[in-house]
Amino acid sequence: MNELELIARLTRNLPLNDSVVQGAGDDCAVIDLGLPKTWLLLKTDAVVEGIHFTAETPPELIGHKALARCLSDIAAMAGRPNSALVTIATPADFEVERLEAIYRGFNALAKSTETAVVGGEITTNPERLLISVAVLGTVEPERCTPRTGARPGDAIFVSGELGGSISGKHLDFTPRLAEARWLADRFPVSSMIDVSDGLATDLRHLLEASAGGAELLSDAVPISRAARLRSRSEASSKPPLQAALTDGEDFELLFTLPSKMAVPLHDAWCAEFPDLKLSCIGKVTAKKGLLLRNRTGNRPLDLHGYDHFA
Amino acid sequence: MNELELIARLTRNLPLNDSVVQGAGDDCAVIDLGLPKTWLLLKTDAVVEGIHFTAETPPELIGHKALARCLSDIAAMAGRPNSALVTIATPADFEVERLEAIYRGFNALAKSTETAVVGGEITTNPERLLISVAVLGTVEPERCTPRTGARPGDAIFVSGELGGSISGKHLDFTPRLAEARWLADRFPVSSMIDVSDGLATDLRHLLEASAGGAELLSDAVPISRAARLRSRSEASSKPPLQAALTDGEDFELLFTLPSKMAVPLHDAWCAEFPDLKLSCIGKVTAKKGLLLRNRTGNRPLDLHGYDHFA
Repeated sequence: MNELELIARLTRNLPLNDSVVQGAGDDCAVIDLGLPKTWLLLKTDAVVEGIHFTAETPPELIGHKALARCLSDIAAMAGRPNSALVTIATPADFEVERLEAIYRGFNALAKSTETAVVGGEITTNPERLLISVAVLGTVEPERCTPRTGARPGDAIFVSGELGGSISGKHLDFTPRLAEARWLADRFPVSSMIDVSDGLATDLRHLLEASAGGAELLSDAVPISRAARLRSRSEASSKPPLQAALTDGEDFELLFTLPSKMAVPLHDAWCAEFPDLKLSCIGKVTAKKGLLLRNRTGNRPLDLHGYDHFA
Repeated sequence: MNELELIARLTRNLPLNDSVVQGAGDDCAVIDLGLPKTWLLLKTDAVVEGIHFTAETPPELIGHKALARCLSDIAAMAGRPNSALVTIATPADFEVERLEAIYRGFNALAKSTETAVVGGEITTNPERLLISVAVLGTVEPERCTPRTGARPGDAIFVSGELGGSISGKHLDFTPRLAEARWLADRFPVSSMIDVSDGLATDLRHLLEASAGGAELLSDAVPISRAARLRSRSEASSKPPLQAALTDGEDFELLFTLPSKMAVPLHDAWCAEFPDLKLSCIGKVTAKKGLLLRNRTGNRPLDLHGYDHFA
């Protein structure tokens, strides 16, 4: 049983109530409590020593990453973060200085994104450090960008460059909050997700929610310098395109919008965010499945990104 | 450094924003997003295998406890739960059936308390199961019962019976949501907390927030049958009164209100909740410190409840 099958099995028949706009299955849960023009967003995410960071990771970056992962999901809904709670489960022999540094990294990102840090707890996990973060955010209903909504013919865009995040970006990335707000303000984004499990897997999430397929242009997939460097220097690494398609933790925005808006979007983006690449990497198709097109033709894309239990 | 000192050190200078009514330091964080007559409550709490439950604990009870602990904190603010997210960090060799049973216990309590289960995640914690829960709740500003607010002369009440929860109650307790709502609707509760770290410690939390002390009547402290049985049958156990004062995980309501309301409250409570004991266990004093009074006089109460890092 892979991760998706397990989650599908566990999240069958969850109890809901009238306030739930979107339960499990999107980047955030969406709750309507009757606030004028505002839905609430809820997200939790955990990072674990030995998996998402190591004993050698600078603790400020552990704190940064723990919060940034949640904020990336708030961004994927085009939301604003409001407040966060942090649970730190630590071995009994923890160093107070390490915890303080984790908090420093966490708080610095919170401050720069106007996210209040309103509590949490310290508990014990004897063998390794684990940090679980919960974030409350808000979004206007008309701006909210769920995973569902991509339509055949829509152009597929991705921000930034992909692959090789393990070289460093997975720790110090910037959640695309400003870019996502700007996008949802100005363009009819039909679906959006953040790239956390790898482009191939996260695009499948979008398409499953939309019941379509996609054709990707292999030359258009933005490959990071880190992915290229890794493929040259490490015998075990993936080819750069494969890294861009399957490496996890890029935390870029992957989204769709009507293709007639593709050129206006590209021009406006370049004017607004000259330092952040935006790539149109393909289109949504009515036929299911992922195709990768290069100069010699189409081939099915059967690569998968990170599966936590594979 | 004990747990309180550590938390004090880590929670200095947390970033806040205009929406924060109460940040770290109460049973829940309180957020005002401009909803008419409604504040939001946020709470996270984690349970860890080997600490809060064991490999032998029936998994339905693990799920129940994980959610019930958060709901007890919502109750301590006189709030209503709205929705919950659950993060399960599990060893790689987990049994799907165990996770499903945990979800069953979690969902059953969610359903009975009208709490929607709106997501979460499964991640890996190689050595032991850890469950982190986040809950969103709501409360009317005029009903919200923070830890601060106890005044000298106020009567101190506690629901239920205390001590010996390790015999079973710590797994299958009922969060006092209905009782807390009823209380805050009808009586001028000046402060409230749930008893999670033991009466002596949690009463100190209330008094620290209120800058006063208390005199407890030792004969009035409600001792559970479990605490009495344990003290008789297990040589290592505490005397029953000490267990009632210091055992953790009772999850009863501890609160204060003006002493002239003590008798009306007691009468109304007995009529409304005939099956749940309510005890007036003492009074708030202007002088700091905890005194325990019995037939022979007063003595300082220097017992402490559970300290996660002592």
